[in-house]
Amino acid sequence: MDFAKTKALFHLPEGMIYLDGNSLGPLPKATAARVAKTVTDEWGDMLIAGWNKAGWMAQPTALGDRIGRLIGAEAGHVTLGDTLSIKVYQALASAIELNPDRKVILSDTGNFPSDLYMAEGLVGSLGRGLELRTVAPEDVMASLSKDIAVLMLTQVDYRTGRMHDMAALTKAAHDLGIVTVWDLAHSAGALPVDLSGCNADFAVGCTYKYLNGGPGAPAFIYVAPRHISTTRPALSGWLGHAAPFAFDLDYRAGTGIERMRVGTPPVLQMAALDASMDIWADVDMHALRERSIALSEIFIAGVEAACPDLRLASPRDPNTRGSQVSFHHPDGYAMMQALIAQGVIGDFRAPDIMRFGFTPLFIDEGDVGHAIDILAAIIRDGTWDQPQFKQRAAVT
Amino acid sequence: MDFAKTKALFHLPEGMIYLDGNSLGPLPKATAARVAKTVTDEWGDMLIAGWNKAGWMAQPTALGDRIGRLIGAEAGHVTLGDTLSIKVYQALASAIELNPDRKVILSDTGNFPSDLYMAEGLVGSLGRGLELRTVAPEDVMASLSKDIAVLMLTQVDYRTGRMHDMAALTKAAHDLGIVTVWDLAHSAGALPVDLSGCNADFAVGCTYKYLNGGPGAPAFIYVAPRHISTTRPALSGWLGHAAPFAFDLDYRAGTGIERMRVGTPPVLQMAALDASMDIWADVDMHALRERSIALSEIFIAGVEAACPDLRLASPRDPNTRGSQVSFHHPDGYAMMQALIAQGVIGDFRAPDIMRFGFTPLFIDEGDVGHAIDILAAIIRDGTWDQPQFKQRAAVT
Repeated sequence: MDFAKTKALFHLPEGMIYLDGNSLGPLPKATAARVAKTVTDEWGDMLIAGWNKAGWMAQPTALGDRIGRLIGAEAGHVTLGDTLSIKVYQALASAIELNPDRKVILSDTGNFPSDLYMAEGLVGSLGRGLELRTVAPEDVMASLSKDIAVLMLTQVDYRTGRMHDMAALTKAAHDLGIVTVWDLAHSAGALPVDLSGCNADFAVGCTYKYLNGGPGAPAFIYVAPRHISTTRPALSGWLGHAAPFAFDLDYRAGTGIERMRVGTPPVLQMAALDASMDIWADVDMHALRERSIALSEIFIAGVEAACPDLRLASPRDPNTRGSQVSFHHPDGYAMMQALIAQGVIGDFRAPDIMRFGFTPLFIDEGDVGHAIDILAAIIRDGTWDQPQFKQRAAVT
Repeated sequence: MDFAKTKALFHLPEGMIYLDGNSLGPLPKATAARVAKTVTDEWGDMLIAGWNKAGWMAQPTALGDRIGRLIGAEAGHVTLGDTLSIKVYQALASAIELNPDRKVILSDTGNFPSDLYMAEGLVGSLGRGLELRTVAPEDVMASLSKDIAVLMLTQVDYRTGRMHDMAALTKAAHDLGIVTVWDLAHSAGALPVDLSGCNADFAVGCTYKYLNGGPGAPAFIYVAPRHISTTRPALSGWLGHAAPFAFDLDYRAGTGIERMRVGTPPVLQMAALDASMDIWADVDMHALRERSIALSEIFIAGVEAACPDLRLASPRDPNTRGSQVSFHHPDGYAMMQALIAQGVIGDFRAPDIMRFGFTPLFIDEGDVGHAIDILAAIIRDGTWDQPQFKQRAAVT
């Protein structure tokens, strides 16, 4: 793969080194025209006919297949829509019904909080003695037991990049009759995922991070072929109905993954995502992973050499790390703001984590080297120690 | 109000009379530039900083107030996000907990099917003897009783335009201790709604119909001030948390309507909606209603005079009708396709309804007159009776 070529496909502001593609991916150059076409030529000129003529109605599942290729899903088993929180809820609500006699949803304290909140909300609604149990990430394997209905995990920790062994945990869970829900928020487009090979049951993820679908891009959901025809979609919306335009009064679940659709798809966001998936269509995920590791290793070595006060928060072994590198520092917030002020964009996660994403489609060795130099200078010169860098923003 | 001026604010394809603004509103001329700005200047140049600098994070509730003005909501009690089906679920899941000892959700057979499907899905998840009961629209008032937990209705029937008396039904429901959920899909931007004056409890609606927010525009939700601080958001996502960026492991509901937010808002769709809300900011809903009735009355009189085979499906009394007019005909599907082929865009709803929306912001007497003439000619000449008009499309 020629990563210099992919870099040229993105709009990257002059003088900015963007190490935050794990939070919001940058704008592909082709996206603006694609969205404009959808707004003007499709919505503007076709109006209601766009649902058929412009293919809006088919787009969620067409896009699902484009994403499915990156995560090892069987064709026709991924669809798009809603937000990741909603898709977590949807997967969990379906998964829990596959183990009606068990009472526990197991997750870990490294999961993204919204996943835990959605589970808490579901448990609060369902009652009947259900419980959300969370353990430390390293204790998940030892905590699997036959009272657990569903194991719900995010593969890659949003703060540290620590990566669970999806294959081993899924197998251990299945041996105990546990159904799995995997959140791929920091996996899809970050590293090769093999849902089918791991025998995953349900998976969900978002498309605005590594996949560059834009702010508020829709989420995706995967259901394994062995479950899909018996899965009850708890969020049973009309576009998941077997015949949405028959307007029957009773719900009949649609065929296959279509049943996991809910309401009207966000057509403008789908158009933006489709433009970015044109780039992903040609990406070799193994080559990307190799390069992501190479860039991350350069960064770790460089930062550790130049900034001994920063303590690595990510696993040192690249095989257990996603596509980001994080460091602890008590003044991490102010240091990150100082870094951002000099054009190196990472982000901060409470309580003390500075987080940097490595996204080979548009970040290269030169960027990594410059980022290290700027960070080292900020710490050496103490430029972060100023009031304007300590003022917390609403969204960090 | 000068409706010639508002008509000039929309992109309306040459030669098209668009009587389907009740399904997907047309493109405001200002929208393309607004969306392009959000894509290029905000996402492209600000990247992650757009959440603060471009105001993306605050947009759902800011837009909520713009819509709130049109539906008689108290300021700060409407927010945007997700799809209407999700918002129906969210409102219903919260509402039902206000009456924990009652077992029935009452709705009517004229409700939009997705509302019924979502209720069916919720009942299927919750179990505990809950029941979704549906009666004919005209029997709702007489069917209210003390075993009903929630009355869930769409104010204006999507097929016929028949309108429920929101004030009377809400009052009768409250007298029996019933909580109300109103779906305003065919009300918001169609007619004056007074949620506060009616003492409504929960309301939801979509923004891609009369409000012209574009295909897949986000939905809205309203919760009455007396309920909001005790409402448990069953779909408890991180953006409804009191401190989303503290990343606490436990959910704490945010203040006021913010708690009904779930996941990352669809920023591009929000931008499109914001552009259309600039038009709505100056609209007098009472003047709009008067004109909608005038146009509808002209249409009914004209069609009945010229096409005696069409049978009015909408209420004859404009005070019990929304902003659409529907006619029955056994060959309604083919007639509608023939009409569309001649540039008059309405739509068809099974089994035999031809549906026409009257949207004074961009439809005038001239349009209505032409539409009547073309429909009359199609029926008089039998031009609808051709195979190409009988072939059903995927999305009707």
